[in-house]
Amino acid sequence: MSTYVFYEPNPLQQSYLREEDSFHAARVLRMKNGDLIHILDGKGKKFEAKITQVDAKKTQFNQVQLIQETPKPPFQIHLYLAPTKQMERMEWMVEKCTEFGIHSIHFFNSRYSERKEIKLQRLEKTAIAALKQSKNLFLPQFYEISTLSEIMKKNQDKPKDHQYLFAHIAEPADPVLGKLIQVGQEYHVLVGPEGDFSSEESNALMAQHWTPFSLGNSILRTETAGIAVTHAIHLLHEIQA
Amino acid sequence: MSTYVFYEPNPLQQSYLREEDSFHAARVLRMKNGDLIHILDGKGKKFEAKITQVDAKKTQFNQVQLIQETPKPPFQIHLYLAPTKQMERMEWMVEKCTEFGIHSIHFFNSRYSERKEIKLQRLEKTAIAALKQSKNLFLPQFYEISTLSEIMKKNQDKPKDHQYLFAHIAEPADPVLGKLIQVGQEYHVLVGPEGDFSSEESNALMAQHWTPFSLGNSILRTETAGIAVTHAIHLLHEIQA
Repeated sequence: MSTYVFYEPNPLQQSYLREEDSFHAARVLRMKNGDLIHILDGKGKKFEAKITQVDAKKTQFNQVQLIQETPKPPFQIHLYLAPTKQMERMEWMVEKCTEFGIHSIHFFNSRYSERKEIKLQRLEKTAIAALKQSKNLFLPQFYEISTLSEIMKKNQDKPKDHQYLFAHIAEPADPVLGKLIQVGQEYHVLVGPEGDFSSEESNALMAQHWTPFSLGNSILRTETAGIAVTHAIHLLHEIQA
Repeated sequence: MSTYVFYEPNPLQQSYLREEDSFHAARVLRMKNGDLIHILDGKGKKFEAKITQVDAKKTQFNQVQLIQETPKPPFQIHLYLAPTKQMERMEWMVEKCTEFGIHSIHFFNSRYSERKEIKLQRLEKTAIAALKQSKNLFLPQFYEISTLSEIMKKNQDKPKDHQYLFAHIAEPADPVLGKLIQVGQEYHVLVGPEGDFSSEESNALMAQHWTPFSLGNSILRTETAGIAVTHAIHLLHEIQA
C-alpha cells in the first residue's frame, strides 16, 4: 500500500493538517497514531512525517523529513482566462493544467465575459487533488478575478525572457502558438471568452506588444484552449530537450 | 442569430431529424415550418435544409443543399483506451478530443482495467454536441469495448504509413511521443489503465512492434493522456505545416 499524501504549504512550521485533510485522515482513512504520511508543500518539496494525534479537526504530526525535492521547472506558464459560465469547466481545466504543470492561473472580465466572479477555493481544492495524484510537485497560484486592463497594466514591463501572447480569432489566421513559442522563457498567455475579445480589446493588446496567435482550425472552448496552451508549451520543451 | 445546427448522418436519404433533435427543435427551440436549419453529417459535410413539419418525435425537412465540405484531414488518429472508473471522465475526454479532431475511439479491458463496460451512446451524444460547437465537421467513430489481445490481433498487419504506439511508464523513461511521431501518417495510440499495462502486456505489445512512449514527468490520468496524445499529434502537424 502506498503512503497517503496530504497538502500543507509549511509543514516545518505547522505541525498539523488542515481541517479538511484532518477529517479525511481521521474519518475516511481511519489513520492511527504512529502512521507515516507524505506531505506536499506545493513548492516542489515532499516530506515524510509521523502522525502523533488523529483528530477530525486537527490531526497532528511530527518528525518531518524532506524526502524529495524537485528543482523549479525551467519555464513558467501564467494563464489568464475569461472564466466560463459553468464553473465545472474551469475545475476540469485546472485539474488538467495542474497535471501538466502550470505556475499561475488568473481570471479576468472582458467585454464578452460570461461569468463575473469565481470561487478560487474550489479551484485550489481541485489543484491540490491533481497535485497528489500526478506527482507534479508544484501547486499553481490562483489570483482573484480582475479586468483585462488591470492585467495589461500589471504586465506593462515586458522583460526580454518573457513572452506575452493572446489567443485570437482572425481572418487571415494568426500564426499558431507552436510557431511562436521560444523555449526556456516565461510565458503569459491570455485566452478570451467564447465570444472572443472585442476588436478594441485585441487592438489594445497588440498596441501593448501582446502577440496574437491562432488555436488552429477548430473553435475550442475556453477550457480546452487553456489545456491546449499549457500542453503545447510543455510539448515544445519536451521535443527540444 | 445564427442558424441552428443538427446532426443527421444521411440527410440526403433521410428527410427527418432523429427523435432527440426533433424534440429539441419542437419543444426547446420552438421552430416553425419554413425555418432554415443546418445539418452536419459528421463526415465533413454541412447542409442547409428547410423545416417542413415540426414534430417532437419526427421533425421533417426538405430542400437539402450542401453548403460546406471539408476535405478529409491529412492524418487520422485512432485512440485505444482502458476506460476510467468514472464515466464522466471519458465524456470529457471525448468532448476535448472531438474539438481537436479525432477519427476513432476504441476501448479495451486489460489486466488492471477499472471498468469493464461502457455506454457508447452517451459518448456519441457528447461528441455530436462538441461537433456542433467546434466547427470541426468530423464525428469520431466509437467501438464496443474489446480486449487488448483483440486489438493487437486486429492491428497485426502494420501498413508502412501507420504508426503504432503505446503509453508506457518505465525506468529509464521511453522517448516522449513528440519525438516519435512522424507527420502525415495514420496513428494508432494505446493508453493503458491508471495501473498501467502489466509487464506481460507491455512485452506482448513490443513483440508485435507497438512502440512504447513516455507521457513526460507527470503521472497523467487516463483521460488526460488521451487528450494529450490527440493534441500532441495535431500540434506536431501544425508546427511543420
